[in-house]
Amino acid sequence: MSKYNVLIELAKRRGFLWPSFEIYGGVSGFYDLGPVGAMLKENIRRLWIKHFVTQHAENVVLIETPVITPEIVFKASGHLEAFTDPIVECSRCGRVFRADKLIEESTGRKVEGLSPNELSRIIREEGIKCPVCGGELGGVRLFNLLFQTYIGPYKKDVGYLRPEAAQGMFTSFKRVYGVSRSKLPIGIAQIGRVARNEISPRQGIIRLREFTIMEMEFFYDPNDPGTPDFNRFSSKKLRILTVGQRMKGEDKPVEVEADEAVAEGIIKNYWLAYWMLVSNDFVKKLGVSGNEILFEEKLPEERAHYAAQTFDQLVKVSRWGWTEVSGHAYRGEYDLSRHIKYSGQDLTIYKHYKELSTRKVKKVLINKQVLGKLFKGKAPEVIKVLQETSLRDLEELLKGSRKELVIKGFTIPKEALRIKVIEERMGGGKIIPHVVEPSFGAERLVFIALDKALTIERDRTYLKLPPEIAPVKAVVLPLLSKEPFKSKAKEVFQELIKAGIHSQYDESGSIGRRYARADEIGIPYAVTIDHKTFENDTVTVRFRDSKKQVRIDSHKVKEWIKMKLA
Amino acid sequence: MSKYNVLIELAKRRGFLWPSFEIYGGVSGFYDLGPVGAMLKENIRRLWIKHFVTQHAENVVLIETPVITPEIVFKASGHLEAFTDPIVECSRCGRVFRADKLIEESTGRKVEGLSPNELSRIIREEGIKCPVCGGELGGVRLFNLLFQTYIGPYKKDVGYLRPEAAQGMFTSFKRVYGVSRSKLPIGIAQIGRVARNEISPRQGIIRLREFTIMEMEFFYDPNDPGTPDFNRFSSKKLRILTVGQRMKGEDKPVEVEADEAVAEGIIKNYWLAYWMLVSNDFVKKLGVSGNEILFEEKLPEERAHYAAQTFDQLVKVSRWGWTEVSGHAYRGEYDLSRHIKYSGQDLTIYKHYKELSTRKVKKVLINKQVLGKLFKGKAPEVIKVLQETSLRDLEELLKGSRKELVIKGFTIPKEALRIKVIEERMGGGKIIPHVVEPSFGAERLVFIALDKALTIERDRTYLKLPPEIAPVKAVVLPLLSKEPFKSKAKEVFQELIKAGIHSQYDESGSIGRRYARADEIGIPYAVTIDHKTFENDTVTVRFRDSKKQVRIDSHKVKEWIKMKLA
Repeated sequence: MSKYNVLIELAKRRGFLWPSFEIYGGVSGFYDLGPVGAMLKENIRRLWIKHFVTQHAENVVLIETPVITPEIVFKASGHLEAFTDPIVECSRCGRVFRADKLIEESTGRKVEGLSPNELSRIIREEGIKCPVCGGELGGVRLFNLLFQTYIGPYKKDVGYLRPEAAQGMFTSFKRVYGVSRSKLPIGIAQIGRVARNEISPRQGIIRLREFTIMEMEFFYDPNDPGTPDFNRFSSKKLRILTVGQRMKGEDKPVEVEADEAVAEGIIKNYWLAYWMLVSNDFVKKLGVSGNEILFEEKLPEERAHYAAQTFDQLVKVSRWGWTEVSGHAYRGEYDLSRHIKYSGQDLTIYKHYKELSTRKVKKVLINKQVLGKLFKGKAPEVIKVLQETSLRDLEELLKGSRKELVIKGFTIPKEALRIKVIEERMGGGKIIPHVVEPSFGAERLVFIALDKALTIERDRTYLKLPPEIAPVKAVVLPLLSKEPFKSKAKEVFQELIKAGIHSQYDESGSIGRRYARADEIGIPYAVTIDHKTFENDTVTVRFRDSKKQVRIDSHKVKEWIKMKLA
Repeated sequence: MSKYNVLIELAKRRGFLWPSFEIYGGVSGFYDLGPVGAMLKENIRRLWIKHFVTQHAENVVLIETPVITPEIVFKASGHLEAFTDPIVECSRCGRVFRADKLIEESTGRKVEGLSPNELSRIIREEGIKCPVCGGELGGVRLFNLLFQTYIGPYKKDVGYLRPEAAQGMFTSFKRVYGVSRSKLPIGIAQIGRVARNEISPRQGIIRLREFTIMEMEFFYDPNDPGTPDFNRFSSKKLRILTVGQRMKGEDKPVEVEADEAVAEGIIKNYWLAYWMLVSNDFVKKLGVSGNEILFEEKLPEERAHYAAQTFDQLVKVSRWGWTEVSGHAYRGEYDLSRHIKYSGQDLTIYKHYKELSTRKVKKVLINKQVLGKLFKGKAPEVIKVLQETSLRDLEELLKGSRKELVIKGFTIPKEALRIKVIEERMGGGKIIPHVVEPSFGAERLVFIALDKALTIERDRTYLKLPPEIAPVKAVVLPLLSKEPFKSKAKEVFQELIKAGIHSQYDESGSIGRRYARADEIGIPYAVTIDHKTFENDTVTVRFRDSKKQVRIDSHKVKEWIKMKLA
């Protein structure tokens, strides 16, 4: 059995994960997390909050926004237009396929980023047929991957499930900024569900239609970005595979210090590099070694519509090979600009300059006296019309040869208007912050952690999960399933639970079988109540990885485990 | 300003919560949690996991299942049929209203549970018109509150957003049971998003269209439920308002010990009572005092379609009065039975009896020799046909006067069959576990915690949040915003953060203003770096509630706060 199959079998049998809705035949792209899986994810979640939020409390906050989102938000974000996959339908059996994948599978040609027309042409030219029934394929069209619904009882109120948490950070940016001391830079993080209506997901828990995203939008002033503290990292090195290398067909990453990578133009800005380093550290904490991580720069056709540069953080796993665990996108001012345009709201930040500066601006001066004489009671209306006319249009009209301007039915003498260039002293100005985004899929991290932890030895299979994320920290075992072993074991078990150490109690089967069971879900410490316990009130603690054993005072076990976990 | 308005203003201004999608005019029924709100919720979430899962690790597990759910699940659960509200549309302006609420508001009559026809009749008889435009109202019809969508590219694959997490626990029950030692009782808990498409929600964060549910389905053998340990509670008392009392118009709850309430028939079973006690304790930890909690038994017409008994846990809050924070439903075997029926899967549990018992069963005996002679090569097919025919049908056929049975075209002599009553010795039998369910809305708990914490004194307004759930545990303040105060303060701040204590650093404004700001978000400890710090390396720690101050060695602050929080 391949390592992957061992893992999937173990994951199901021990309760980490399995396909959802099994009793109804299952629905692809949906997975349940079982008792140990959900707890592993909970621990990864808490580790993420620590790494990305609380350890950066000076300028990162956590928020939560809804999954269901009104249509206007995804019009603004560009997802309604761009978050699509090309699909093609069989005219005989009606099955639907992803057109680009179908072409790639049957011809080996790379066709990502080609238009529906181009894909249709290739299908025609190559004579590609329905892979299931052999029928003729129709024309390629774009399928939007947003799950659609209606909010409330009216059919006009279309809503979508968000495919990323990010838009919540953009639409609420101004308010979060306001309640957070109104200072840049600021990172706004969120953990929550997202949904992507994949055509036919086939990679198990790697490609889900619904999953938990752990995402941060980090906003900074592009003219005054501040200096990230690269010295907080024990190593500043990143392994990067650039677009340039990829175009040349190279697959050996360069190893480079993050700040140097910015200086050399490999990474577009310092904050992008900074959060890549944080992500590097975070993923290592899940049990991934440094040489199994690399950051792959995406080609323009591989990038999302909002990104000016993107790196995928890849981890090498069994079966799937190099697999994306996080995306690092430089979104610039794209999203905020779009929301400014679509909402008509001012989402800019007023930035005070360190020194006063001046700038030249054109202003329209309106001679109200002239207008008053001419229009009498209608003068205010005329002034309003002039004020609402753009500077550019007024300039055009003034250039004309006539002595009067005609605007909205009013004939206004040119002398009533003057356009003047004046010098303004400025203490600051409006800016649209730029954004870099590190974004993780939580379920993938669960899989990655399991894949890296799976250790197959001659006589046992176990999960070498880092104790910090292990779903269960300790198991308490009476050596024999009888009194007084059971009572004492239950007592120790209750003490651990009360101390907040997530533990199990197990009395069934031989001690060897119970150790094996604990090893398979990655419990780092097994506490056994044995004969000696009733002589000197000590217990045996066995280490999962080394199988070594130590004896510890039975009432000190909880402090001992707490210390080990800290 | 009312207390509620003070709270909502503070919650917005300080970043606890605000309506979502504000820049697009908002969508009712959706709220964002801001930086302190999201952290408050995170702490409530962790407290819930502690109270409902990890402290009961002997028989409670946590799982996670998807929000998007295929249609068949809600057919089986009864939600497609029963999860509805009556609506009525104005024939002039097209606006849609909840029919029962409309009638209640314009006539004061209680009409919950009446059919659409009855509601239509009342609207006609009472001459109720559109409250907005005065137009004629149409007929009342049922509106399903499930958000609908499609899974994948085919329109036949209808899916819904779950309105409760529970169905995930039922559809995956057998697997969770299997990976959890196959023992009853077992509680399966889940925290996740749910969505309910309310017609026109108007109660702010109290009535949301999308929220986080914290829910547990507790499965037990109704014939052998086990004994919950009521002694783990310091007080076993519950304040209960029964259906009987409510029918008599009483509103003073009875105070009764949980196990006595079961003995007296007030609560239908011990596990329901047990989880009500856990919930009582949990809600108190959020800062609610015991006499502000009561359990109201729901009238039959107020109960969900699956419940045989329901108690709502109510907490008294400003503006909304007694408000539901959790529901406690006795769902019996309803859900598992329905999923057995709709999935055709065996979701029963094989239960070993303590003593062997016998039971009489009817069996069909097939004389294969007779059939072999008669049908030769076709005999196996005939046997299969007989085996697939139900016992009941065979009995009917045998009763007939003919000497032969005709089944699926085969003419079979009666002598080939015999129906016999035999006695079976049984070591166990199949049971369908019963279920009790405690279910909380996380955002309501955030609101409840804020409402209870809000303290308005003559000279200040502050949040008396229990330190365990306070979103920020400490704020570090340089007395003066200059060196060496700032550097020392940042050093202490970094130490706290590294120790995992979520903290803030604040240097702007007078020390009084900074205290006030910290008080308003409920920070329990304010650490000030003052002149004396540079004499003896101590800092001032100020307590939020008492405003008292103590001096502590600057390097011991983190241990001191950790100890206080533990």
